[in-house]
Amino acid sequence: MALTEDQRAEIMTQRHEPQPTLRPTVPSMEKILYAPFEVLDHGFLRVVDYMGDDGAVVQAARVSYGRGTKRVSEDAGLIRYLMRHRHSTPFEMCEIKFHVKLPLFVARQWIRHRMANVNEYSARYSILDREFYLPAPGDIAAQSVSNRQGRGNVLPPEAAREVLDILERDAMKCYADYETMLDPEGLGVARELARMNLTLNMYTQWYWKVDLHNLMHFLALRADSHAQYEIRVYAQKMMEILEAWVPLTAAAFKEYRLGARSFSATMLQVLRRRLAGETVTQADSGLSKREWEEMNAILAEPAALN
Amino acid sequence: MALTEDQRAEIMTQRHEPQPTLRPTVPSMEKILYAPFEVLDHGFLRVVDYMGDDGAVVQAARVSYGRGTKRVSEDAGLIRYLMRHRHSTPFEMCEIKFHVKLPLFVARQWIRHRMANVNEYSARYSILDREFYLPAPGDIAAQSVSNRQGRGNVLPPEAAREVLDILERDAMKCYADYETMLDPEGLGVARELARMNLTLNMYTQWYWKVDLHNLMHFLALRADSHAQYEIRVYAQKMMEILEAWVPLTAAAFKEYRLGARSFSATMLQVLRRRLAGETVTQADSGLSKREWEEMNAILAEPAALN
Amino acid sequence: MALTEDQRAEIMTQRHEPQPTLRPTVPSMEKILYAPFEVLDHGFLRVVDYMGDDGAVVQAARVSYGRGTKRVSEDAGLIRYLMRHRHSTPFEMCEIKFHVKLPLFVARQWIRHRMANVNEYSARYSILDREFYLPAPGDIAAQSVSNRQGRGNVLPPEAAREVLDILERDAMKCYADYETMLDPEGLGVARELARMNLTLNMYTQWYWKVDLHNLMHFLALRADSHAQYEIRVYAQKMMEILEAWVPLTAAAFKEYRLGARSFSATMLQVLRRRLAGETVTQADSGLSKREWEEMNAILAEPAALN
Amino acid sequence: MALTEDQRAEIMTQRHEPQPTLRPTVPSMEKILYAPFEVLDHGFLRVVDYMGDDGAVVQAARVSYGRGTKRVSEDAGLIRYLMRHRHSTPFEMCEIKFHVKLPLFVARQWIRHRMANVNEYSARYSILDREFYLPAPGDIAAQSVSNRQGRGNVLPPEAAREVLDILERDAMKCYADYETMLDPEGLGVARELARMNLTLNMYTQWYWKVDLHNLMHFLALRADSHAQYEIRVYAQKMMEILEAWVPLTAAAFKEYRLGARSFSATMLQVLRRRLAGETVTQADSGLSKREWEEMNAILAEPAALN
Repeated sequence: MALTEDQRAEIMTQRHEPQPTLRPTVPSMEKILYAPFEVLDHGFLRVVDYMGDDGAVVQAARVSYGRGTKRVSEDAGLIRYLMRHRHSTPFEMCEIKFHVKLPLFVARQWIRHRMANVNEYSARYSILDREFYLPAPGDIAAQSVSNRQGRGNVLPPEAAREVLDILERDAMKCYADYETMLDPEGLGVARELARMNLTLNMYTQWYWKVDLHNLMHFLALRADSHAQYEIRVYAQKMMEILEAWVPLTAAAFKEYRLGARSFSATMLQVLRRRLAGETVTQADSGLSKREWEEMNAILAEPAALN
Repeated sequence: MALTEDQRAEIMTQRHEPQPTLRPTVPSMEKILYAPFEVLDHGFLRVVDYMGDDGAVVQAARVSYGRGTKRVSEDAGLIRYLMRHRHSTPFEMCEIKFHVKLPLFVARQWIRHRMANVNEYSARYSILDREFYLPAPGDIAAQSVSNRQGRGNVLPPEAAREVLDILERDAMKCYADYETMLDPEGLGVARELARMNLTLNMYTQWYWKVDLHNLMHFLALRADSHAQYEIRVYAQKMMEILEAWVPLTAAAFKEYRLGARSFSATMLQVLRRRLAGETVTQADSGLSKREWEEMNAILAEPAALN
Repeated sequence: MALTEDQRAEIMTQRHEPQPTLRPTVPSMEKILYAPFEVLDHGFLRVVDYMGDDGAVVQAARVSYGRGTKRVSEDAGLIRYLMRHRHSTPFEMCEIKFHVKLPLFVARQWIRHRMANVNEYSARYSILDREFYLPAPGDIAAQSVSNRQGRGNVLPPEAAREVLDILERDAMKCYADYETMLDPEGLGVARELARMNLTLNMYTQWYWKVDLHNLMHFLALRADSHAQYEIRVYAQKMMEILEAWVPLTAAAFKEYRLGARSFSATMLQVLRRRLAGETVTQADSGLSKREWEEMNAILAEPAALN
Repeated sequence: MALTEDQRAEIMTQRHEPQPTLRPTVPSMEKILYAPFEVLDHGFLRVVDYMGDDGAVVQAARVSYGRGTKRVSEDAGLIRYLMRHRHSTPFEMCEIKFHVKLPLFVARQWIRHRMANVNEYSARYSILDREFYLPAPGDIAAQSVSNRQGRGNVLPPEAAREVLDILERDAMKCYADYETMLDPEGLGVARELARMNLTLNMYTQWYWKVDLHNLMHFLALRADSHAQYEIRVYAQKMMEILEAWVPLTAAAFKEYRLGARSFSATMLQVLRRRLAGETVTQADSGLSKREWEEMNAILAEPAALN
């Protein structure tokens, strides 16, 4: 379980006493504020603060004195316009802060998004808990043959079992030795040194704050089907939170970013020829085999929203 | 006057209906929210949103599940520690959003602070109002002789009057010609072109959002006595807002940043010699004449908090 | 003319003595290094330094020990792959530094690109030259009726003449008064104050340094046909420099960014129906009238490269 | 050993053929270009490119047409002035690129410096080598009692031996199991999954590019005695490189940053009283016990340049 009783109690104190505010407030966010959503086997994601709403995007785009909002249909139209034309600055006017518990190897991918603020639990200052990620058997997959950096088929149950045994045994052993090294009655090694013995599936946690524009950039990359499963599940949960927070923005994001596809200059020429009735083959398309297949995949099936 | 009746009415609608929230709330900020503070002759500064408080800094530094705060004295101590040791990331966890009306030449200095979010009123899209900055006579100063980029003595009244006449006449003339060029019944020039005829004392406005760490960096540079007067008055007003918003952080900021002074390696050696009873002269101090004077100025008088 | 004899002589001293280096070197960049390209009536753009080449992109993507390059065809393939899949970090490994002279109203747009380094000529510290931008008569256009932030038809010659007279007269008058105020024998006003009397078509200059990824982001926005003409001419010159500097990257940029177009989720559905032989009308397309027209425009004509 | 024969050979090809360039060139950097400096037991640091020199700082500060440099003494004076008054933008005009091999737990600290460009070796795409960091026995220290995030005394030899045995055994076992899981003839687990079994002392490598201003910010934090030893050794090597690259800047950096100390508002008051001949005790100083000790430490001994 991701949270102890004490931690849950601490969280609950924050949910007790609503205060009056004149700031923009989103009732559906108030409902979920502070409450942890469980992700993976021991991880979680919770919203600890937010600033602004769809109206704040509109207000900034109009540099208005008041709320800036007009009729909902006009606001939606403006937000769709901003998204379509990649006017990113009005979306930077909203901000959200998460508390996240996540495995170290996921944290290493996540931190590459530089346009965010982070405070991570310090293993120089404190001792990490004995919590590490073990994939569900159905998530243990073979190396993909077609994609050098992805997963292929799920492993058969016995093989998955074997993998889990290895992962669990090694993580347990490394953690036990971490404790042995730290023991103030024994070796008493400095925390900043002992931590190097931990495996990359150990959980860490951090506060992560990001503006709405950069959150969507994160989601466009990490909620995508090419993202590693273990970070994608966090992104998918954040996608749901996005819809609760800024529904007009989330709808425009799905229409013009997540569900949209880019056609290269050469693809556009192929498209024009096909629409004019011509039969185009890969050989005379000017596209590589791979691009040809990518284009056909886009045109064959509805663009999945991840 | 900086605001029309309509604008004031629009602002007031935002101040009408408090909503309940579970987010950290600062009563002294709620009191000033949306209300414009007048700055210079037609400018203003108003807080349109804020996220977090002193407790949010503490909470992030501790990566805690709950509020993170303990006794006020412990929180103050932690915040002082973070400020003293330049741990900047916990301060990035708070955010503030301003609506600012300011002269163009001030905006050009301000925008150099890149770690912030900005939406400016667009003179490609809209027509700028006929509002330009004229300094108060007591703020019209001669070029400093000692400081190549500063002001010296205030001009005598008649000279100041002459300067104001020039500034007003040129700004009025340029604005009138801006309108002449824009007139859809007349020349009908594109807004994006006509605006080049305006003078740099014209007012613009923007939404400006920044985290607490970068706000303090802005204040350290712009509330300083070396900053140009016309941006410093904005910074000073923001300094008051800082004290209302995060009083523990503001106090630590004054103690360890604004009121602090840095001694170079050579200055430290001079200091050690003097404390050991030695009489040190500039000639044998290893300091340049200018540094020697700077050091004496620091040691002679209480460090002014700007 | 943009440059004085003295300035040209100063530039030429830099072009005199080649030094041996082991760093990646691009002969076509060495040819243009330091030399100013004239832009607008008094502006210029010149490359004052560069770091890396196409090979440096490949080297970083492969985290290789040596040059990282293989056969040109493989390098081109990798660069196309990186561009197609928006792997931006390898492109951040190259850097370019420009010296630019540009009108103030252009500088105000340009500076909004925060991911760059800037040192601007200081009008607090020095006196600006009497140089201001006057559009060529053929570039003076009416406000667009269809596009709230763009230009429509070119003005008739007499009207253009009238506009130029206004612009010139006001700029001259404001500059003359700027000098009057500065005159140390006369009013002797501080430079930081006097500058507020200048018009936005005055020229300023700066050193501007940016990495290859952010340069392409700048170009995607500013070399675009929707960008204001006065910044677009700088971007177009930089586009030529890009082709001289990193030809493989520039080709991929044109194929996958400049010449590419994004289709929204709904546009993709329309496309699928049309390719299946269905006749789709705007009314049953799910697209707004504007989006419908945008889509037809993309499909009707070759995607212009800017 | 940090590098294989093949890798050394690859590096040497880069050192073979100097090309002529008109760009600023630093002979002492050319001498070390590409050559790896060994750090820790298997790590290294090597410069793979650089842009600019001390003259480029001066040139940008002056926004000059030519080299911008005058007499060396004037350039040194300007650079000292810029450093003293924290004018950071001219230092952003130089850039350096490193190839670094470093343990994962060091990489996790390093990456927190966001104002840099990074390309890391991908363990999703490739298999990591069997190389992990084992501290030298003299670097294995106990947890500090006075500093919650630091090291205290070195462990006795037998204890150090025990720690090393643990670290080596666990890293070897985890790596062996990583290989077992990856084996395409055996379990064939996806690389992106198998890597989670590795320990944090495994080596990774990356290309890291940073401007001179941000490099000095990195060094101010990481070459400091409070930084963890394992990152400090990289920073110290970079400090030597800084001195080879930009000697005037490096000297000013040592004088005004590394060797300088900040006195808080209250410390300044204590200083004034002491210089006036008063005997001040901690009790009546207004300083906490800790600050009192910090101040005495600064005044007692020469500020170490780390």
